[in-house]
Amino acid sequence: MKFVRYELNGKVAYGILSDDTIRELEGDPFTDYRETGNEVSLADAKLLVPTTPSKVLAVGLNYRSHLGSAPAPKNPEIFIKTPSCLLDPLGEIVLPDGDDNVHAEGELVAIIKNRTKGATPEEAAANILGVTCGNDVSARTWQSDDLQWWRAKGSDTFGPLGPAIATGLDYDNLQLETRINGDVAQSQTTADLIFPVSAIISFISQAITLEPGDVVYTGTPGTTTALKAGDVVEVEIEGIGLLKNSVTA
Amino acid sequence: MKFVRYELNGKVAYGILSDDTIRELEGDPFTDYRETGNEVSLADAKLLVPTTPSKVLAVGLNYRSHLGSAPAPKNPEIFIKTPSCLLDPLGEIVLPDGDDNVHAEGELVAIIKNRTKGATPEEAAANILGVTCGNDVSARTWQSDDLQWWRAKGSDTFGPLGPAIATGLDYDNLQLETRINGDVAQSQTTADLIFPVSAIISFISQAITLEPGDVVYTGTPGTTTALKAGDVVEVEIEGIGLLKNSVTA
Repeated sequence: MKFVRYELNGKVAYGILSDDTIRELEGDPFTDYRETGNEVSLADAKLLVPTTPSKVLAVGLNYRSHLGSAPAPKNPEIFIKTPSCLLDPLGEIVLPDGDDNVHAEGELVAIIKNRTKGATPEEAAANILGVTCGNDVSARTWQSDDLQWWRAKGSDTFGPLGPAIATGLDYDNLQLETRINGDVAQSQTTADLIFPVSAIISFISQAITLEPGDVVYTGTPGTTTALKAGDVVEVEIEGIGLLKNSVTA
Repeated sequence: MKFVRYELNGKVAYGILSDDTIRELEGDPFTDYRETGNEVSLADAKLLVPTTPSKVLAVGLNYRSHLGSAPAPKNPEIFIKTPSCLLDPLGEIVLPDGDDNVHAEGELVAIIKNRTKGATPEEAAANILGVTCGNDVSARTWQSDDLQWWRAKGSDTFGPLGPAIATGLDYDNLQLETRINGDVAQSQTTADLIFPVSAIISFISQAITLEPGDVVYTGTPGTTTALKAGDVVEVEIEGIGLLKNSVTA
């Protein structure tokens, strides 16, 4: 099943996406919902970030292909992004003043269904609603020069997310591809994650309570390249769909 | 004026605190409110974190007395804490497993009133609702060993905040004192902040949009010491009040 969040005629709702039709929901997929019976054409709706989280967490250095010469970390290397950085599917990534070395990072992203605290990996897996596509946009100059990654990873528009939360997939075996202007920039399977989704969420939950709707980016594979105004970035994951964002100055 | 948030008989509300009486509000101080006419005794209410923010930001290295031998930073060194780490006035700080070197950091904390993006320091100052007392609890082993400070600064209970948001103060000239079991651990005036409150918020807002109710910890002075179970930590700031939290294992 695929959950989306969308706006139509000024009204925001969650829905279930089947082919090109959205079945409107009352409520939300994190707590409780029912189908209203209304149907909307996907072409008529503006898709939004598919959750409104209290927190956005992410993982660095979680594919061997992204480590360079660094050793694999002993624990997941977690960092915090901001809810305000989240960007709608089809939203524009805005390059900031002050750092001209901004990269796209295509990632599998998990969305939490139930409050999660001190969970085992098995319990964590049971608390995931589903997964979506994310782009952990990263300003490399700030990332190296600032003490912490707050603006390197948390600036406005640095968190494209969507288009849909897909449930029931094998999160540990999905093909991920990032394309820039149609050229493949990253291509890897999530089977290559050093720490799989359930291990990441279990580890976070030992320190931080995760809430329904919270977002966990799981890391990016391979190498990344700088974006420029006018670029189009696509992150596509098997079974989920396509996250497509243009870049503006 | 002092705004509080409190629970009484299962109902949560904002209120205005005068001496030992809370005047109940309908609405909230960030958007719109009116007094309901109901009054509550402070002794009967359970004070809560005085805001429910979308984001919690903080500053490191913002008093010369805390720098040690490090040079003063060129820009405010911002980092992100989690809303889930916020702890009620009188709530218990829980020492985590895995790091036995957890310190208290008494701080002045600004609360945002209006959405703030790309603001000058003057505009930022006009967008502050008021200030409160905060404790930026910090797990030093994780702070040095992890790539980022997510759990060093963002673990559950690591953000005591309150008791009240005080408006109309001169934020740049307030006496701050931290006591552990009654002994003074930190004592400094906010006049010694390297980057004053309005400069911090202006700087953040160049990258990240701040929302009503958002929280900005402004840095801690002097040196800090490790907490142990049974300790009582007090952060008191002139014109605001006393934030008092016990420590448990």
